[in-house]
Amino acid sequence: MGETPDNKLLLRALRREPVERTPVWLMRQAGRYLPEYRAVRAQAGGFLEMVQEPELAAEVTLQPIRRFGMDGAILFSDILLPLQAMGMELVFDEAGPSLPRPLRTRGDVEALTLGDPRTSLAYVGRALELVRAGLPGGVTLLGFAGAPFTLASYAIEGGTSKSFLELKELMYREPATWEALLERLSAMVAEHLLFQHEKGAEALVLFDTWASTLTREDYRRYAAPWTARVVAAVGERVPLVLFAGQAEHLFDDLCAFGPAAVAVDHRSDLASAFERSRGRCALQGNLDPGVLLATPTEVARRTRALLESVRGLRGHVLNVGHGVLPATDPDCVAAFVETARELRA
Amino acid sequence: MGETPDNKLLLRALRREPVERTPVWLMRQAGRYLPEYRAVRAQAGGFLEMVQEPELAAEVTLQPIRRFGMDGAILFSDILLPLQAMGMELVFDEAGPSLPRPLRTRGDVEALTLGDPRTSLAYVGRALELVRAGLPGGVTLLGFAGAPFTLASYAIEGGTSKSFLELKELMYREPATWEALLERLSAMVAEHLLFQHEKGAEALVLFDTWASTLTREDYRRYAAPWTARVVAAVGERVPLVLFAGQAEHLFDDLCAFGPAAVAVDHRSDLASAFERSRGRCALQGNLDPGVLLATPTEVARRTRALLESVRGLRGHVLNVGHGVLPATDPDCVAAFVETARELRA
Repeated sequence: MGETPDNKLLLRALRREPVERTPVWLMRQAGRYLPEYRAVRAQAGGFLEMVQEPELAAEVTLQPIRRFGMDGAILFSDILLPLQAMGMELVFDEAGPSLPRPLRTRGDVEALTLGDPRTSLAYVGRALELVRAGLPGGVTLLGFAGAPFTLASYAIEGGTSKSFLELKELMYREPATWEALLERLSAMVAEHLLFQHEKGAEALVLFDTWASTLTREDYRRYAAPWTARVVAAVGERVPLVLFAGQAEHLFDDLCAFGPAAVAVDHRSDLASAFERSRGRCALQGNLDPGVLLATPTEVARRTRALLESVRGLRGHVLNVGHGVLPATDPDCVAAFVETARELRA
Repeated sequence: MGETPDNKLLLRALRREPVERTPVWLMRQAGRYLPEYRAVRAQAGGFLEMVQEPELAAEVTLQPIRRFGMDGAILFSDILLPLQAMGMELVFDEAGPSLPRPLRTRGDVEALTLGDPRTSLAYVGRALELVRAGLPGGVTLLGFAGAPFTLASYAIEGGTSKSFLELKELMYREPATWEALLERLSAMVAEHLLFQHEKGAEALVLFDTWASTLTREDYRRYAAPWTARVVAAVGERVPLVLFAGQAEHLFDDLCAFGPAAVAVDHRSDLASAFERSRGRCALQGNLDPGVLLATPTEVARRTRALLESVRGLRGHVLNVGHGVLPATDPDCVAAFVETARELRA
């Protein structure tokens, strides 16, 4: 490809430099919709076994790159692993992840260990080294972590939640415990991201999956200060992409952190988001992952329309607005990536 | 109260007439957070038994009015009952509602019966009559139904869903089946709403709970035409409030239907929503129901701030942005209602 590390297409787009075409990758591009992923998963036994075995994690990270040729490869891992590294029990089963002993008291929070992720999450570093060694030239390696607020929601609820009752009760009624928890989580997240950068991650994504449960007022009070710490610790050294699911109401706050890019949900209009971003950052997004359940022809049509809607604007990284769904036909992912690769920016 | 039916506070606000204070009610104001509700529920045995027994449904509808004095009483019922009336099996258990034999084919859709809700949902009419008889003067009686899109999502998925895979596959890949289904559902919904109006409902709410899974483009194509039919059939005769959960991206489309009011999610800024509504309709909302998990003092503070933010604007009905959560302390609901009753508009 003749590209040096710094002039990779995805990194140039994140710096809002001119690009010859729009770089593309997909959140959850490695996953159950790929038969080769399901084969590795069956071999590994369980999800945790797969993400904690560097060879397997690296293999599934590379699978979509080999098959589709995206411009970014995001390490196959999970945002909850740092909670396990901090001493929480973590289980993955058919129903998804759970933490059987959720945090509820100040004592629970103080019992969290704050070890160095270079030791407690060493397998993440090893997996990144292996991916890097197998990655085609020109493809950018991405690491990631969960944002402090979202990690807190899992730690307190013990899993995913519809209403976040436990979280909100603790947040509103025990502010000191809340702050102690977010303090610890933001320190761990920042270190974990820096560790991933040391091991070869050229860009990082911070996933604040559940931030949208908060109003803007509460986001500013209960989540933003700790995201700001992570951005301050990491953002100067390596490009950081901020993701918050279905959170149009938080878009201006995300831009104001000054990250390299903000991910845009598919329910927001991308061209309007570019206007609202006022050149503060690049934008990632935002095809509806539900559209990948349609036909390849329809996927190509919608992808072209999306790219046309922001043609000529600098700093666009094509992606889905949320992760690829397990029922997706790989041919639809191919149509998405190929459409991006064919169109000049 | 000396109010004739037409000059009830809530109805005047829905017509955007001047009011002496902002009317208030809460979505899911009857429910598990109330001990008197739990007592009736225990007596009834199950959820379906309760909503289909007019005396019990009327009793729980009136409970929050007696305790808190809201300006609107919404019939205790469920949006899925019309699906049962159309021939689908419907089960409520601890995990929520489910439809054990979801619709997947054109044949399934054609097997739906389109009987008159005046017969198949007669118990709803009887419950409304009982509520009306027991309702204090000045309190507006509200009926409701699920919007065609949201009913379709339950009918196809067989229950609630995170990703709506079955729905989207059918919607994108079998448009004729989709249209046949939405056609039937919108006819049933319109008749059911008119029936509720005949039985005493003075205003109606159309809940499109899951519309926010759609991008604006898809909402316009796959949902809006059938909501428009319901609005056309009903909206001229009785004030209609349109609700779509967490759907800021659909706000302009909802206003454009020309309903009496649009419900605003708590993650949207209410004052900005008034600007965007450009006088087309009243607005309902939008305290975060999560805030009702805080203390009564905090609830009162936030409610005052919310009312202040739209002071002087006509056509505001105070409500929560989404339903009251089961873990809510009744004292927090009291603080919300009392704050509204104390402040002059």
